[in-house]
Amino acid sequence: MSADAELTGLSLIGGQPGDRHDESFRAYHPTDGRGLDPFYFSASDFEVDEAVKIAAAAAPVLAASSGAERTVLLRAMADGVDAAADALVERAHLETALPRPRLTGEVARTSNQLRLFATVVAEGSWVMARIDTADSGRTPPKPDIRSMLRPLGPVAVFGASNFPIAFSVAGGDTASALAAGNPVIVKAHPAHPGTSELAGRVLTRAIESCGFPAGTFSLLFDAGTRVGSALVRHPLMRAVGFTGSFKGGRALMDLAASRAQPIPVYAEMGSANPVFILPRALRERGESLAAGLHASFTLGAGQFCTKPGLVFLDTPEAPFLAKLRSLTANDPGFALLSSAIAKTFGKGLQERSVLQTAEGQRQGAGFAAHAALQETDYAAFAVSPALHQELFGPSTLLITNTNREQMFAAARALEGHLTATILGTEEDLREYAELISILETKVGRVIFNGFPTGVEVTHAMVHGGPYPATSDGRSTSVGSQAILRFARPVCYQNLPQDALPAELKDDNPRKILRLWNGAWQTP
Amino acid sequence: MSADAELTGLSLIGGQPGDRHDESFRAYHPTDGRGLDPFYFSASDFEVDEAVKIAAAAAPVLAASSGAERTVLLRAMADGVDAAADALVERAHLETALPRPRLTGEVARTSNQLRLFATVVAEGSWVMARIDTADSGRTPPKPDIRSMLRPLGPVAVFGASNFPIAFSVAGGDTASALAAGNPVIVKAHPAHPGTSELAGRVLTRAIESCGFPAGTFSLLFDAGTRVGSALVRHPLMRAVGFTGSFKGGRALMDLAASRAQPIPVYAEMGSANPVFILPRALRERGESLAAGLHASFTLGAGQFCTKPGLVFLDTPEAPFLAKLRSLTANDPGFALLSSAIAKTFGKGLQERSVLQTAEGQRQGAGFAAHAALQETDYAAFAVSPALHQELFGPSTLLITNTNREQMFAAARALEGHLTATILGTEEDLREYAELISILETKVGRVIFNGFPTGVEVTHAMVHGGPYPATSDGRSTSVGSQAILRFARPVCYQNLPQDALPAELKDDNPRKILRLWNGAWQTP
Repeated sequence: MSADAELTGLSLIGGQPGDRHDESFRAYHPTDGRGLDPFYFSASDFEVDEAVKIAAAAAPVLAASSGAERTVLLRAMADGVDAAADALVERAHLETALPRPRLTGEVARTSNQLRLFATVVAEGSWVMARIDTADSGRTPPKPDIRSMLRPLGPVAVFGASNFPIAFSVAGGDTASALAAGNPVIVKAHPAHPGTSELAGRVLTRAIESCGFPAGTFSLLFDAGTRVGSALVRHPLMRAVGFTGSFKGGRALMDLAASRAQPIPVYAEMGSANPVFILPRALRERGESLAAGLHASFTLGAGQFCTKPGLVFLDTPEAPFLAKLRSLTANDPGFALLSSAIAKTFGKGLQERSVLQTAEGQRQGAGFAAHAALQETDYAAFAVSPALHQELFGPSTLLITNTNREQMFAAARALEGHLTATILGTEEDLREYAELISILETKVGRVIFNGFPTGVEVTHAMVHGGPYPATSDGRSTSVGSQAILRFARPVCYQNLPQDALPAELKDDNPRKILRLWNGAWQTP
Repeated sequence: MSADAELTGLSLIGGQPGDRHDESFRAYHPTDGRGLDPFYFSASDFEVDEAVKIAAAAAPVLAASSGAERTVLLRAMADGVDAAADALVERAHLETALPRPRLTGEVARTSNQLRLFATVVAEGSWVMARIDTADSGRTPPKPDIRSMLRPLGPVAVFGASNFPIAFSVAGGDTASALAAGNPVIVKAHPAHPGTSELAGRVLTRAIESCGFPAGTFSLLFDAGTRVGSALVRHPLMRAVGFTGSFKGGRALMDLAASRAQPIPVYAEMGSANPVFILPRALRERGESLAAGLHASFTLGAGQFCTKPGLVFLDTPEAPFLAKLRSLTANDPGFALLSSAIAKTFGKGLQERSVLQTAEGQRQGAGFAAHAALQETDYAAFAVSPALHQELFGPSTLLITNTNREQMFAAARALEGHLTATILGTEEDLREYAELISILETKVGRVIFNGFPTGVEVTHAMVHGGPYPATSDGRSTSVGSQAILRFARPVCYQNLPQDALPAELKDDNPRKILRLWNGAWQTP
């Protein structure tokens, strides 16, 4: 199956192709910088409005759909993603230069995410049903009150550049918003429009085959900010999911907050993912920590929002440093996702007034970059706010000569990040226990003896963290809890049994977890 | 016990009295408009900063406190509120002119709320623990991941004028924020500073006696917006709870959204609480519906955020109308809470170009008002946006000649409200089933055959609703779910058992509900 032959360059408005307009753009191949066909046509203002209107019209149908119906839809989408795996991988490889095995893994992650949410809505307890029965004997009589989570309405999703499949058109934001019963409009990332179009068609076909309204999903193209702004400003939109830069995320937050009716924005904006290497572990297994750290900060050419970018340690032990420097020096070079990322990375490396103690090779004519190990010490780091920021790409910064109290001070001075990692022995951890209580106020995930890259898609995962890591530290964009972002509680007072949603009827036909008069009950 | 003798007019900064500054104000007695002693001194900018700093210092201690410890604190606060009942009722009666029995009920509601949250944190399941155990056999090995809700940090609470005890200093926002483990700083409502000071002292004494840090609670006075703005702008604040006007709530939302680090605002801003009277019920029990509606819209002089302000019905049946007009005409007159509310209510009644078909008496020299029944028809209502707004005070607006399709259209055209009420027979409800699915997208609570005033403090209650009823339709400010506003999920990856919070240890020592590898388990 050839991917290119199929591509049209047109938006998908509820399954219908958009028009060809004046504005167009194309993707570029990262290893040589050549432009890729076809050209993609930016959606017109009329098309944005049309996509939102049909989404708003579809919203009550989705809200009334059963968990079982949405399960069928999400599974059809997952099957469609798997069936399109070859085309998705080939096109994504062209548009991102990410290795095929990694992209194949992303396809599996994407269909697994869709299936996870299918399971969540099939099981049904996610609505957090609460029932307080009436007491007619009380003065005044106590009414019957029952509440559950209900969908918000049309959700705008902005795909990420660094996960062209799993955090993009058919990714976690789309899956969780649909699972909760909301229509979705995706603004495709301009760096991988072809991959986006292929994924968009998969979703559209599943929607058609399952009999959901066409307005359930639309896909809009644009290389600038016009379409995204129009989407977030549209009065009928109800929430926004975004993965990308801090600048882009904050712009959407400000736009959403300034609406006549403000709406929630869930923006995942990046993180420097501090790592704290404790003394015993550094002495006992310096080389293996160096190997793990190197693998983590160069994974995906360092283009992970969980890339470990700040590494605090006390005495710089020779085996650790030697190993890390040598691994970095031997790195073969990377092609980054876009010329903008490559430029920002190169500039960021140069601007940091720190020692660059190891540098990998550089090759290729496209968006090329080399791995970089930079080093400073705590005294210098503490007075250099610029060093605290994320640098997106294959580099990390060691902050040596950070003693115990300074580690606590460094942790307290952190802004919000997605993750924080502690590498240590159990004895180390007892001595540094305070670190956990500080770090849990700064991040969404505290990791012990692991590396932050590799975000499990599970029920307990929190891929979030306080601002500026995300717009809203009360949420996660990965894992089954992501569905909670796109729902709100509604309660029904004294409604007759046959008018209640199934989740709230006395006999619990959905067989879900419920809080019954204050006691949690499993069926 | 005399309340006045005790009052100092000073803020309470972690239990310490604030200073006397240039700015001061006093409360007024609503029935005669006379000023009440003592004068209250606005907190200085320095005092605001001090209150926030000690709150931030107390935050880690509160976050580390156990549910059992916070249970003791909340129960001590509840006992203190009950012990101070006489003083609270007397002073609140002076400052608000609300009847003593109503205020006595508010005291009970306040201590019951504190005890409800004590029970919630004693039981402990509110943290929504999720555990996904490791699988070392997988490639790559699957880590152990465990998540639960953790507190946000210092919370600012703005008390409401209309519930001087239950939605004020010791009210639901304070109780739920403390229960979740957050320090609280209350900006007292200037209409009842004496009641606020009494309640603030009760909370302070409980904090001292339970050994919590002084920064756990502060109370700040100010008649203007300076102190509130400084509080919401302060970089160390983490969330805001507010009950009051739309104008005030939106100003806080905008302020919080424009911070360098935006923070969540939970503002409950008001609602017109539409009521739909369906045809059979109107014919069968018009008089009793009229009596119920009249009692609801005049309760507390109509100064409830759940006052039914819009009533849709088809043919205006004589028994219903006659009864409602006669009850309204016989109303004895009311003293409203403040001169501002009285002025706005009087102006609002005059500005509405509708028929005023019944008017109660008016008495007293203070902030006096009469009950008012106003009537229009659907055709006129549909083209008069001003009529859709809340009018705070003892009035309601009947919208007659609204047929079935027009009821659906009216429901679809609603902005966000706290509640919507359907009065009908079960046969009516089947014919108008679509009304429920429309209304649940517009409100937090859908009521059948009841009246919206009277908000139960239970587990299932949702006292919220889409903007502009509240700032954030994903939340409730009443009932045990209110605690969820002031917490965020954090996950721990591969942490050793003895470093994990009790809620997440393998053997479930807290005996709470947990999602264990995807299955909800009760202990």
